[in-house]
Amino acid sequence: MGAVGVASAARAQGPAADPARPAPPKPDAKGTSDAKGKPDAKGLPGTIAWKDPDALIVHSNQTVETKRGFIGSGIVTPIGRLFIRNNVAPPPDGIVADRDAWRLEIAGVADPRTLTLAELKRLGLASVATVLQCSGNGRKYMQDALQPGQKISGTPWTVGAAGCVIWSGVPLRAVVDALGGPAAGMRFVTGTGGEELPAGLKPKDVIVERSVPIATLDTVLLAWEMNGEPLPLAHGGPLRMIVPGYSGVNNVKYVKTVALTAVETDAKIQAASYRMHGVGERAGPGQPSIWEQPVRSWITAPLEDGAAGRAVVTGIAFGGVNAVARVEVSVDGGRSWSDAPFIGPDLGRYAWRQFALALDLPAGTHVLVSRATDAAGNVQPEETPPNGGGYSYNGWRGPAVSLRTA
Amino acid sequence: MGAVGVASAARAQGPAADPARPAPPKPDAKGTSDAKGKPDAKGLPGTIAWKDPDALIVHSNQTVETKRGFIGSGIVTPIGRLFIRNNVAPPPDGIVADRDAWRLEIAGVADPRTLTLAELKRLGLASVATVLQCSGNGRKYMQDALQPGQKISGTPWTVGAAGCVIWSGVPLRAVVDALGGPAAGMRFVTGTGGEELPAGLKPKDVIVERSVPIATLDTVLLAWEMNGEPLPLAHGGPLRMIVPGYSGVNNVKYVKTVALTAVETDAKIQAASYRMHGVGERAGPGQPSIWEQPVRSWITAPLEDGAAGRAVVTGIAFGGVNAVARVEVSVDGGRSWSDAPFIGPDLGRYAWRQFALALDLPAGTHVLVSRATDAAGNVQPEETPPNGGGYSYNGWRGPAVSLRTA
Repeated sequence: MGAVGVASAARAQGPAADPARPAPPKPDAKGTSDAKGKPDAKGLPGTIAWKDPDALIVHSNQTVETKRGFIGSGIVTPIGRLFIRNNVAPPPDGIVADRDAWRLEIAGVADPRTLTLAELKRLGLASVATVLQCSGNGRKYMQDALQPGQKISGTPWTVGAAGCVIWSGVPLRAVVDALGGPAAGMRFVTGTGGEELPAGLKPKDVIVERSVPIATLDTVLLAWEMNGEPLPLAHGGPLRMIVPGYSGVNNVKYVKTVALTAVETDAKIQAASYRMHGVGERAGPGQPSIWEQPVRSWITAPLEDGAAGRAVVTGIAFGGVNAVARVEVSVDGGRSWSDAPFIGPDLGRYAWRQFALALDLPAGTHVLVSRATDAAGNVQPEETPPNGGGYSYNGWRGPAVSLRTA
Repeated sequence: MGAVGVASAARAQGPAADPARPAPPKPDAKGTSDAKGKPDAKGLPGTIAWKDPDALIVHSNQTVETKRGFIGSGIVTPIGRLFIRNNVAPPPDGIVADRDAWRLEIAGVADPRTLTLAELKRLGLASVATVLQCSGNGRKYMQDALQPGQKISGTPWTVGAAGCVIWSGVPLRAVVDALGGPAAGMRFVTGTGGEELPAGLKPKDVIVERSVPIATLDTVLLAWEMNGEPLPLAHGGPLRMIVPGYSGVNNVKYVKTVALTAVETDAKIQAASYRMHGVGERAGPGQPSIWEQPVRSWITAPLEDGAAGRAVVTGIAFGGVNAVARVEVSVDGGRSWSDAPFIGPDLGRYAWRQFALALDLPAGTHVLVSRATDAAGNVQPEETPPNGGGYSYNGWRGPAVSLRTA
């Protein structure tokens, strides 16, 4: 740690912090949002017009990223700053007008039935903090590394298609046990989203239906709250299937069916998409599905040029299904590393942790990177080889911050 | 735990959960708020017009309580639902237009000086979750217990002048160490708020200046973020002195001076207010100051009549400066008790925890209460004897929930 120079000139660390509060919210239930997600005057789609426009990058109506300087230091990501990624446009906001009336079909159990959300609420309550991250977060770094003639389609997310959320709801295990337990031979938990499917397309080609291994039966939460508030429509309200440690697509929004199944769904989003395959190769069910998230970290401040002297390098780190155990910081692009202490409360193995390392940045050019290790000993690689879908990037090199101090 | 009756009719547990998002915020820095706190059309004072009006009870412009059914299950209290209690009206919102320019005088150290917020940010970063609670939270239960002729002045808060917040900022210890350490003989940490003092009154009679024991030097945080967002003006932005485990008044808003001092401030708010004294007695500096919060808990659901059968009784519990170690629930008004499990992540000793106990409520009348024990073995009493200020209520009897199931 360098000398403390508290009298040095102020310098900008990240973006201006005002306004203190997000843009005017549009309550879900009052018909003010536009279910088609048409961008409003501020550039935010109607369904999320209540979010903080200053904190967000709008890639499209269905893909909105948190700016790197707006991740904050409070561990839990404010809902107004959290990213959005939809595979299909959200259902009409009428579904959150009477949340307790939402119906969930439970299948693949001894006593299958359909329960209302009000009934689910009587079965138990649990809370879990998880990193919610789009499977393609960091895709831009893979796209930037492609050879001529190669192509990876998809939103060029950098680090902002991720956040840390506290979910509250009923454990799936409590529901399954109340319905007599799993039927015999079931190997997957399959959730089906409540999106209205576009006309003229084969339902299996567009339906959001994902299968995850049955081992998740003991960790899946059927969540109706996010960060202590009723789950907004834009994030899957009234009910979402949360699969802790798994990438975003597996956390099915507006979940209308949860089935324990013997085989994976043959919906296209499971069978032919979100598979780990080579660039230019065709995806299919023989390839690994995008399920558990790999260990990852990135720096959140400083992000801009500034005065030389004392600085606090901060960032976030997480391990997917494993707790994050260690994070190192380098200010010389990975030539030398220092352990960075975690700060704040530990929200559990599926959450991210924040780190802060005070050091001295002498005048010059600096390349700031971070490298995390999870509790199973997995270490972030320097680079993640590109794959056809641009999924699961976790290299430490991609999100490097280059800046000058003077 | 009673029989599981998942097919029983839905019943209301707490208030309707819509709208999903709070009312339109007014960004602090854009001159849209009314620093005088004039109530707007929705009944919320202008400085907090961006909060969720459905979640709040407006006692006055400076005293706004969270409704019991809106505490949520996510541990951290959403800012839009958090209570407000000001001793003096907030300063003009210009002070959050350029947050990094805010100046804090540090005195009582070897090398006293004034630092900008930008400079403070270079000294370190930490996060802590604390229960922020008005010293008078629960006063109504004391007022209800008074004998004829007795009186306790003050807002009749029930349970809603409290929330759990994640604060981020620099530890006071890091700042003091950077300035050469404490001067000799200092026994208190004294913070001064940046409110504009009303004309025509003696400054010492109205200034918000509080002293807490020097032991807090190792726990006080100078916070610029709340729940991952820049600290709103209404909650003390740009900078607030957070004293973990201490009641609300000690957490000085818009803090402009932090001094290590040999004696307590003689400001009225310290010398003659927020003292533990008998009903009808005069308060003075010889009486104990309202500092550490006692162990407390209350039930958050169910709050209303409903169908008999399976229910999940939920609530929150905290121990002030001690971690909360145990909570028990009774559905017969305290005749018999059952241990209730905590749910969700543990945010540390100063945070509250949530509990959830699934049980059977047969048809009839029920009186639901909870009783917490902290890590030091302190147990909530059945009642807290009334005191002159109506401070530090922590009885388990007061917040009892009476309801009928049929």
